[in-house]
Amino acid sequence: MTIAPHESTDAIAHDLAGWAAGIEPEAADLDLARRALVDTVAVTLAALDDPAAAWTDGLPAALRWAAVGHVLDFDDLHIPSTTHISVVCVPATLAAGGGGREYLAAAGVMARLGTALGWNHYTQGWHTTATVGAISAAVAAGLSLGLDSDGIATAMAHAVPAAGGVRQAFGTAGKSMQVGFAAQAGVRAARLAAAGATADPRAVGEWFRLVGGRRSPQVEGPIIPDGLGLKLHPCCYALQRPIAAVRSLGSLSIDDIARIRVHTPRSAVLPLIYNFPSSGLEGKFSLNYGIVAALLDGFPDIGSFTDAAVQRPEVRSNLDRVSLVAEPVGEGVLDGDCTVVVELRDGSQLEAVVDLPVGHPRRPASVADFEAKVRGCVGDERAAEIVNLDWISAAALLQRHLPGGVN
Amino acid sequence: MTIAPHESTDAIAHDLAGWAAGIEPEAADLDLARRALVDTVAVTLAALDDPAAAWTDGLPAALRWAAVGHVLDFDDLHIPSTTHISVVCVPATLAAGGGGREYLAAAGVMARLGTALGWNHYTQGWHTTATVGAISAAVAAGLSLGLDSDGIATAMAHAVPAAGGVRQAFGTAGKSMQVGFAAQAGVRAARLAAAGATADPRAVGEWFRLVGGRRSPQVEGPIIPDGLGLKLHPCCYALQRPIAAVRSLGSLSIDDIARIRVHTPRSAVLPLIYNFPSSGLEGKFSLNYGIVAALLDGFPDIGSFTDAAVQRPEVRSNLDRVSLVAEPVGEGVLDGDCTVVVELRDGSQLEAVVDLPVGHPRRPASVADFEAKVRGCVGDERAAEIVNLDWISAAALLQRHLPGGVN
Repeated sequence: MTIAPHESTDAIAHDLAGWAAGIEPEAADLDLARRALVDTVAVTLAALDDPAAAWTDGLPAALRWAAVGHVLDFDDLHIPSTTHISVVCVPATLAAGGGGREYLAAAGVMARLGTALGWNHYTQGWHTTATVGAISAAVAAGLSLGLDSDGIATAMAHAVPAAGGVRQAFGTAGKSMQVGFAAQAGVRAARLAAAGATADPRAVGEWFRLVGGRRSPQVEGPIIPDGLGLKLHPCCYALQRPIAAVRSLGSLSIDDIARIRVHTPRSAVLPLIYNFPSSGLEGKFSLNYGIVAALLDGFPDIGSFTDAAVQRPEVRSNLDRVSLVAEPVGEGVLDGDCTVVVELRDGSQLEAVVDLPVGHPRRPASVADFEAKVRGCVGDERAAEIVNLDWISAAALLQRHLPGGVN
Repeated sequence: MTIAPHESTDAIAHDLAGWAAGIEPEAADLDLARRALVDTVAVTLAALDDPAAAWTDGLPAALRWAAVGHVLDFDDLHIPSTTHISVVCVPATLAAGGGGREYLAAAGVMARLGTALGWNHYTQGWHTTATVGAISAAVAAGLSLGLDSDGIATAMAHAVPAAGGVRQAFGTAGKSMQVGFAAQAGVRAARLAAAGATADPRAVGEWFRLVGGRRSPQVEGPIIPDGLGLKLHPCCYALQRPIAAVRSLGSLSIDDIARIRVHTPRSAVLPLIYNFPSSGLEGKFSLNYGIVAALLDGFPDIGSFTDAAVQRPEVRSNLDRVSLVAEPVGEGVLDGDCTVVVELRDGSQLEAVVDLPVGHPRRPASVADFEAKVRGCVGDERAAEIVNLDWISAAALLQRHLPGGVN
């Protein structure tokens, strides 16, 4: 289905809906889905005390679960599309009563639609997780509600008006809220389609064109092409690699360091818009802070990205030692390598180069790494329960902790 | 505040929020607001039996009221912005407990933002009522909840992800649904801002740029610049003028007619995308059907735009007698004149030219016309009650007929 640019995009919704309705997951796909489920639930439970949980009190389940699930920025990422797939598709699936197959179909649509929109959509200013998320959540919920291919295409069309969201929200609660809106809009869209509300599936292609899409998504290939990137640190994916580079140098005292330079393509740090963050949320999008936190904390974890942690005096006094040498071009958050050069006060220099951070599909986290992440999120006592969740027990667990309405 | 193109749009949210928080309505403004309220409630009650009421069962109040209010396409229009202002701003105001002042501020923001985006935004494929509606509904709800100027700007930013909607939805339930989504997204955004959820008001300017905005909105002038266009016929505003032109020729028997040509700028009939409609919803966006309905029914009313009415044999056999002669350019649904030329079978020819349809702010509907519309919507018995509604009694009435949730 690779087609020339400026083709008609009329059939996007039908093609993707037909693909979604017809997938036949293998055991490895369902394993990937269950790991995404566990990761998503773990990072959601880790954020139960975040104000996002209170702000969304009384709002629909899919919205709450996705917004709270995303607020730590600790959930998985599909790298070619620059989208947080699971934090949208898991809540939408669970809120509509679906399981692994429904999640996978939605995740596959999100990967394909986001990849087709491409880096250009993201650099223009759109927040791809929110834009393609709404339409993909409609697939998750539509399949979960038993819609056929036409019904799913109609649900996708009803999700179009909610396919917004901009990167300007990064560093504020707006980022996780708009991810929550997307998940819930998909569920709402599927329920409307199930109830019989008509919509024109060509609206999906029209929207796609309006937000910069030129080539229709490809439907062949694995269910989630290129897999999912798992995060070990609760911050923007663009920080995972610089942190990994600093950590690869071993333990260093920040007092011995004169200057740190990060060399990388511009695209690999594009979302890192705060040089001097003032809050934990801003710290998650700060190259300077990510480097300093790795030096101060060793393994930056949830505690490293609180407001208090970002405001530590030893942070403030060191942020300006970090500088960026960025090549002007690039395509995505893992383009090229990331080189960190540390100049010590004694005149010596250390250098580390990282291509892929641990957690990348081609450099997967070990079982031990993953379980350590879950323990860090939910505590040692609950880790086994969370690691063993299935789609039914996960929905019940979230509903207990974050009760939400249906619509 | 007229500024050169390609300026920074960072300040849009702050400028509009500041304007909205500071308006001082005069008696004439409040009269306009109350007429908008009555018109909106009347057209909403007229649609209580539409499936839209059942489809939205259980959904939030603002969504239901706006979706059902818009499904007949009988609600008022702000012509320079091509937006249905009241069906978004009245439900958002009522759902958040506001009144005339809050409605007017939101209506003024919607007029300004939509006019600034201009005809280009609409012709690209966006449905301006839905796109600027979400952000304007946040103003209505934000003021109603007592937010100050900064709070309103934050609410506007939370509404950005919902500022979508495309014209491809026209002729399906998707059109009224996305208007409902917009109204509700604004209420949700204002509640989140009131609860303390942070967002960056610059997101509004970023979104504005992404959807084609170039010049910041002007904040001076009347509260609703150029007033509101009232519809006498329950169909797209672009049909009001052609119907008025046909009606100005007096009673004609369709059997005497060989051919009808409508001459008008292309922009004035742009939304009329169905030449041969198959449903009532499609008929509302059909030049051919609007003309035939005016000939068959005299005064096209709610009964003229049912599925059954559109499917009448005497309709089907006459649709292809209508043709369009469109000038290629234009700016909006009232550009130029509308000339209807009727060629009779006896070889003679009748011609009518209409500039403004009755109901246009510069050719206002009389009190009798308006009350006739209300009677047509709610029946003779209830007309007096509806005409005398205020903002408190209207909210109670809608909640009784279309009970909705809070969020």
